[in-house]
Amino acid sequence: MIIITKPDATEEQVQHIVHRVREWGLRPEVSRGALRVVIGVIGPEELIREKPLAAIPGVESVTPVMKPYKLVAHEFRGTHGVVEIGGVAVGGNEVTVMAGPCSVESREQIISVARDVKAAGAKILRGGAFKPRTSPYTFQGLGVEGLKLLAEARAETGLPVITEIMDTKDLAVIEQYADCLQVGARNMQNFALLKEVGRSKLPVMLKRGMSATIKDLLMSAEYILSEGNLNVLLCERGIRTFETFTRNTLDLNAVPVLKAETHLPVVVDPTHGVGIHDFIPAMALAAVAAGADALMVEVHNSPELAKSDGEQALLPHEFTELLVRVRAVAQAIGRAA
Amino acid sequence: MIIITKPDATEEQVQHIVHRVREWGLRPEVSRGALRVVIGVIGPEELIREKPLAAIPGVESVTPVMKPYKLVAHEFRGTHGVVEIGGVAVGGNEVTVMAGPCSVESREQIISVARDVKAAGAKILRGGAFKPRTSPYTFQGLGVEGLKLLAEARAETGLPVITEIMDTKDLAVIEQYADCLQVGARNMQNFALLKEVGRSKLPVMLKRGMSATIKDLLMSAEYILSEGNLNVLLCERGIRTFETFTRNTLDLNAVPVLKAETHLPVVVDPTHGVGIHDFIPAMALAAVAAGADALMVEVHNSPELAKSDGEQALLPHEFTELLVRVRAVAQAIGRAA
Amino acid sequence: MIIITKPDATEEQVQHIVHRVREWGLRPEVSRGALRVVIGVIGPEELIREKPLAAIPGVESVTPVMKPYKLVAHEFRGTHGVVEIGGVAVGGNEVTVMAGPCSVESREQIISVARDVKAAGAKILRGGAFKPRTSPYTFQGLGVEGLKLLAEARAETGLPVITEIMDTKDLAVIEQYADCLQVGARNMQNFALLKEVGRSKLPVMLKRGMSATIKDLLMSAEYILSEGNLNVLLCERGIRTFETFTRNTLDLNAVPVLKAETHLPVVVDPTHGVGIHDFIPAMALAAVAAGADALMVEVHNSPELAKSDGEQALLPHEFTELLVRVRAVAQAIGRAA
Amino acid sequence: MIIITKPDATEEQVQHIVHRVREWGLRPEVSRGALRVVIGVIGPEELIREKPLAAIPGVESVTPVMKPYKLVAHEFRGTHGVVEIGGVAVGGNEVTVMAGPCSVESREQIISVARDVKAAGAKILRGGAFKPRTSPYTFQGLGVEGLKLLAEARAETGLPVITEIMDTKDLAVIEQYADCLQVGARNMQNFALLKEVGRSKLPVMLKRGMSATIKDLLMSAEYILSEGNLNVLLCERGIRTFETFTRNTLDLNAVPVLKAETHLPVVVDPTHGVGIHDFIPAMALAAVAAGADALMVEVHNSPELAKSDGEQALLPHEFTELLVRVRAVAQAIGRAA
Repeated sequence: MIIITKPDATEEQVQHIVHRVREWGLRPEVSRGALRVVIGVIGPEELIREKPLAAIPGVESVTPVMKPYKLVAHEFRGTHGVVEIGGVAVGGNEVTVMAGPCSVESREQIISVARDVKAAGAKILRGGAFKPRTSPYTFQGLGVEGLKLLAEARAETGLPVITEIMDTKDLAVIEQYADCLQVGARNMQNFALLKEVGRSKLPVMLKRGMSATIKDLLMSAEYILSEGNLNVLLCERGIRTFETFTRNTLDLNAVPVLKAETHLPVVVDPTHGVGIHDFIPAMALAAVAAGADALMVEVHNSPELAKSDGEQALLPHEFTELLVRVRAVAQAIGRAA
Repeated sequence: MIIITKPDATEEQVQHIVHRVREWGLRPEVSRGALRVVIGVIGPEELIREKPLAAIPGVESVTPVMKPYKLVAHEFRGTHGVVEIGGVAVGGNEVTVMAGPCSVESREQIISVARDVKAAGAKILRGGAFKPRTSPYTFQGLGVEGLKLLAEARAETGLPVITEIMDTKDLAVIEQYADCLQVGARNMQNFALLKEVGRSKLPVMLKRGMSATIKDLLMSAEYILSEGNLNVLLCERGIRTFETFTRNTLDLNAVPVLKAETHLPVVVDPTHGVGIHDFIPAMALAAVAAGADALMVEVHNSPELAKSDGEQALLPHEFTELLVRVRAVAQAIGRAA
Repeated sequence: MIIITKPDATEEQVQHIVHRVREWGLRPEVSRGALRVVIGVIGPEELIREKPLAAIPGVESVTPVMKPYKLVAHEFRGTHGVVEIGGVAVGGNEVTVMAGPCSVESREQIISVARDVKAAGAKILRGGAFKPRTSPYTFQGLGVEGLKLLAEARAETGLPVITEIMDTKDLAVIEQYADCLQVGARNMQNFALLKEVGRSKLPVMLKRGMSATIKDLLMSAEYILSEGNLNVLLCERGIRTFETFTRNTLDLNAVPVLKAETHLPVVVDPTHGVGIHDFIPAMALAAVAAGADALMVEVHNSPELAKSDGEQALLPHEFTELLVRVRAVAQAIGRAA
Repeated sequence: MIIITKPDATEEQVQHIVHRVREWGLRPEVSRGALRVVIGVIGPEELIREKPLAAIPGVESVTPVMKPYKLVAHEFRGTHGVVEIGGVAVGGNEVTVMAGPCSVESREQIISVARDVKAAGAKILRGGAFKPRTSPYTFQGLGVEGLKLLAEARAETGLPVITEIMDTKDLAVIEQYADCLQVGARNMQNFALLKEVGRSKLPVMLKRGMSATIKDLLMSAEYILSEGNLNVLLCERGIRTFETFTRNTLDLNAVPVLKAETHLPVVVDPTHGVGIHDFIPAMALAAVAAGADALMVEVHNSPELAKSDGEQALLPHEFTELLVRVRAVAQAIGRAA
């Protein structure tokens, strides 16, 4: 932590800061410039990270030296990690593809889509049973019935299943049916939920919030790891910017940043990321080239009749063509898919 | 709903769209321009609002005619509403002030601050018992103990109490102690929580998410009203922009917009909104001039030792001075405070 | 400047950094923590502000201690400054109002509006002769003819005139007719233009760019002052955010920040800031309450027929009513208007 | 154009709108819903695009049907275009690479870097002679001397040269030395400059402004084409968002969008886009996978001593390695490089 004083800070104020730092168990190192005093704080930064240093009279700014996350930091493992979802490894040399419909709508729909995405090369099935919808008047998902259908589709195809959890109350029932929990963008800072999934045996895919910085995303992941669940995947799914041509702005910059900052595998969701059907393939390929460990793509066998997000779903044959190209780009950068 | 086709849409595609619209129980009106066909859809828009029209081949864009919210819309009541919190009306001619510390830390602290803010003119006491913190390693609030202390402070001062709810599981216990529920910015789209507080007898203050549009905020409020709880306040507390000088960008534009769009009272939180101690008073005055029905301000008797957000808390004497100025501005625009 | 090294920086890299700092004429102070080395750099920071310190191997981050602006800094004068525009002082106790149409369209229009805004209490007349328009196919302003009409309106009413400059080539002709130059948001970082107006005898109102931080705005003003022109006004006119309900997001937070950071007077343009006719008065009042020294408001006598931005112009009688309320709020905070 | 009235619009207001539309030479088609009237406007939309329809009493919203750009629209050519820069084609099957230092600093520097980037496979040399710098106190470029050095480097290597123009006054001299003009992000809406380069014989690369939407970028390009210069390249170089980990947010979503919307070739600048040395290669590869026609990359032979932006320059050997990977990804998507 480095404390910089205001130009008009008095000597008394400087001494008060120094006193506080010592009181909190750390060692202050004082350098005096022409106008300002710089106080370096030596020792375990976590002791004072949350102290309201800026509230002390005379303080102009406070700059941390250490990263605020520990368990998710790349240094914590020193290598990239691999997370297993129902026997499928995410984070190794292979680029893993997760696919399926936005919502589970019926037995026929989910099984048909599951077969199609498996045939195309997907390794994990996605499908929403509890749906976070902007409007209370729209389809809210089939709930537990949807979970059961997902389990049937898994039995049919062998694909492990990832599905979203929206409420701490639902953890037990979802654990009965799913192989991986998804925490959605809108719940990325639902800390009660993060703690709860942190106590689950299932791996968790945490999606970046629409206005969450990369640091915020890592801090939310830290909540899960700090409860004991180390099997966490991070998912970039588009942020909110001023641009309105695309539904969101898929921030692929986050991919190399996360690969450098954390050992957790990085997933990219181009479907929500750009949110426009015709542009999803280009963004999926770009995500792989940027270094993503996995893709999550929405596929529907009849988008026009979908109960949610039909306008951004790929048709099975479009998805099949996309995966051919995904494999080519993965190989070009020395990975499999 | 107005559907516009692509320049290269075929006649067959146009007929398919028309067919779908009829199938969904609405009446299509087709206007043909030189390049594009415009299909006006007449009838109750909610029937097709969530249909994936953009997924139909040949569709270029879909523009809704109706607002997606009903119960929160200004037209629903036709007048501005008043919400009562423990006997204190918010939304009438008087500008109501809610104040208190970020977190409840101890009996001494909360009672001392409650007395100070009451003396200055605040009508409602705020204080966090369950705290949403970015880091799992920082103070998470006193929980139920904090609720009890808030109730003690109410007994002592007569001020009704508002406090944050973070998990559906906590509703019952919070209802025992508080007069108003607060849903925080990070949970603005935690739909499970919105539904739950929609079933509570207590009024709810819903804070705008950091990247929530005004429309998003109104849709989240619609969730609460649609469950039967009509006593909802909306709170602008700063949005996330590219500007880094201030902690957030308090969006006062939202105040007149919300006053026009909804009958719900509008609260402004200048403390989180600008997030820098010295600039809070100016933003509080501006909020009143913009038409806010209430202010929420953080006050602490020893910010330097606060367990959360001390750097943005006003001291009691600063708060007292601020309220003198708030009253002057309120009167200048024809209101009381 | 404070340099922090990476956790894996070698001693050789640390020595190389120290060597560079000395070579550039400054004094390094080295503090060693458990993982990182912190190197405080003592001496005139401008000597190394632009050195690519982050390009030196082993450097993790570089934090400046000093502000990057000098002439615009509040410390440079120590008081708030006053800028005179054709005899009208901006920045004193009185809140000054500038008003007029978006574009000068005809003699009748500009003289009629000039009379109306003067009668309502405006002290300075605005009007565009050279117009920055998003589309090349729309009205681009009357050019020199517009300047002449502005001068006629000044002769008629006595109101000094402010108008926009878009090209360095136009400075000489605009200087013949105007009392104050306006640099528009889209040219805020047109550094060639900033240098040119920095050599003018006329005062300059610099509008904040749509994505310019407050620091960027101050740095652009620094360009003008560094060329010798100290008569600069800063104008907040709305930034670009994700919110689409309003045309821009008027950032009133910038008002108290700028009043603290610089001695230059601060103008607010609620017309472009919120960009919706019905919400302009509320934002104008809020701007005054936040501490603005002046307002710039667009007024047109026939908005429906205006050649640009008619949808956000106030009618003369609306403007008159607004100024009555502006005066009340100004008095409430101890100012005149 | 589709005009939607307010729920409380009177019949008289509706008739007034209809009257105006006819007066402007277009045909109104009126559809009446339960609450609102929808008025479709048939005919050449440009006739009324700039009319202040929203200023007419009773109008709630106005939605354009046509795109506001014509010459830059994909339909205008019907195919992707190719722009030649000194004999090098950009926009064909090959992914073209432009590279060089941020600023031209000396003969030795520019010739050395030019040789290195040519050897690695770059086809066009970049280098700034007139530099847009945030601070007036930093290196502003060598000016005409820099142009001469670029011409020398071209003579030495055969690489055509692209360099930035900042002021209309400089066009003639830059035309003497350069093969392509660059309009920088900060001047993207400097309309005087756009018109001027629209009259040049040289091709123009237009960089997207930091807060420019894709539509804004296309409208600015339209200015250049409308003056007669059809040889325009568009360059995505990062937008401004709330994320602070990266210097900007490279918006690769813009690549497939622009390829669909316009016939103009699309360049991506990963150097400024992400702005952090270590992440530039990943973003360059992602840009190619997303479909970019060209890359612009900054390379310096001694970044630590560079006069501008050294912290984000690649070393020649890093650039050489990157181009090997760029070629592999280009081939994977069926292109050359």
